[in-house]
Amino acid sequence: METDILAKNDHLAHANRALFRRKGVFALNLVSSPGSGKTTILERTLGELAATINCGVIEGDQQTDNDAVRIAATGVPAVQVNTGAGCHLDAHMVRHAAENFDLDHLELLFIENVGNLVCPAAFDLGEHHKVVVLSVTEGEDKPLKYPQMFRAAGLLLINKTDLLPHLDFDLEKCREMARRVNPHITILEVSARTGDGMNAWHSWLAAGIAAARAAE
Amino acid sequence: METDILAKNDHLAHANRALFRRKGVFALNLVSSPGSGKTTILERTLGELAATINCGVIEGDQQTDNDAVRIAATGVPAVQVNTGAGCHLDAHMVRHAAENFDLDHLELLFIENVGNLVCPAAFDLGEHHKVVVLSVTEGEDKPLKYPQMFRAAGLLLINKTDLLPHLDFDLEKCREMARRVNPHITILEVSARTGDGMNAWHSWLAAGIAAARAAE
Repeated sequence: METDILAKNDHLAHANRALFRRKGVFALNLVSSPGSGKTTILERTLGELAATINCGVIEGDQQTDNDAVRIAATGVPAVQVNTGAGCHLDAHMVRHAAENFDLDHLELLFIENVGNLVCPAAFDLGEHHKVVVLSVTEGEDKPLKYPQMFRAAGLLLINKTDLLPHLDFDLEKCREMARRVNPHITILEVSARTGDGMNAWHSWLAAGIAAARAAE
Repeated sequence: METDILAKNDHLAHANRALFRRKGVFALNLVSSPGSGKTTILERTLGELAATINCGVIEGDQQTDNDAVRIAATGVPAVQVNTGAGCHLDAHMVRHAAENFDLDHLELLFIENVGNLVCPAAFDLGEHHKVVVLSVTEGEDKPLKYPQMFRAAGLLLINKTDLLPHLDFDLEKCREMARRVNPHITILEVSARTGDGMNAWHSWLAAGIAAARAAE
C-alpha cells in the first residue's frame, strides 16, 4: 500500500510538473526540521523580490495558519494547507492549492512543506527543486543522519549563520557531510535575520526563474 | 491499514509497558525536531547520574550510529536502531532493543526517537512518558503547529537557553502555547551545554525512578 500511495503521488506530481512547465512557473519545495527558519527566509526573500517578480506561497503545517498570515503581511498571496495528523504535503494538496493562483502570471511558487526532515523526502510535489534548509543550531551531522532528504534536494541553505559565534558548529564539516550524501548539491549560507548571504540565494532564484520562463 | 498498524503497535507497547513495570524500569521516550539537543542532554545527564543509577539508552536514527557512539563514550550501554526510510521508532523495535539490557538491574531507560516532531507522536513505545525537547532556536509557536506531539508529552524540556540573549524568543509565550495544547504538561528550561537548569530535570528523573521502583 505504501508503494501504491507513492506511485499515485508520483503520477500527480508529474501532472503538477507539466502544469508548472507549461505556465513557466519556477516551483520550489522548501523542506527542513521545524524551526529552521523557512518562513523567515521567505519573508525576507519576498520583501526584496515581490516588487519585480510575481510570487506565490503554499504553506504546509499540521495546524495553524500562522505562516500564511506572516507571508500575507508581505503582500504576496499565500494559501495555507493544514495536514492535521499528516506529516508532509503531497502532490494532490499542492494541485488544489495551486488553483488559488493566477498561474498565467505567476513566476515563482514557494511551497513550504511541513517541518519534517524525514517524510517529505519521499513525496514529489512536482517542484523544480527541493530546497533543504538547515539551521546551524541543529548540528553539522544532519545530512548523514537524514540522508534521503539531503539526497533529494538540489540546494542546501545553511541558515542562522548570525549565531555561529555562539555555537560549536563546523561549517566546512557540514558542507563535506552534505556533499558526501549528495555530491551535486548546491550549498549557500544565509542569515535570514541579518540578510547576510541572501544575494547569492536571490541570484540562484533569478537563474531558475529565467530557465523556467525559457522552457515555457 | 494505518489503523491496523497503530492497533498492532499499541498492543506491543502495552506489553513493553507491562515488562518495564514488572522490572521497575523508568522508561522515557525522547522526541523532538532534529538537532534540538536530545543527545547532548543525554550525555550530560548520564555523566552526572550514571555513577549512582543503572541507565541504558536506545538510540533511534534513520542512518548512522553517531549518537550511540556518543552515549557509549559516557560508559552507559547504548543500542542503536536504524530505521532506514522509517520516520519513527515503534514498540516492536524497542522490544528487541531492550533485550540487550539486563532489565533486572536497569533503573532508567532513555529511548531517543528519530528527530521528528510529527510521526513519533502516534507511536506508543510503552514508555512512562514522552519527553519533548524544544530548542529555543526553533521559535515559540511549535506547540501550536505540532499539537499532537505536545499533547502526547508529559514533560517539555526547553533547551539551549544559553542562546536566549542572541534570539528573539519569548519564553513565557512558549510556555503559554505549550499549556494551551496540554494544560498538564510539566515544563523545565535547560541548557545542556552550560548545565543550567539540569538539577530540576535530574530531580524529575529521580522522582520517576523512585515511583517505578515502588510500583515494581
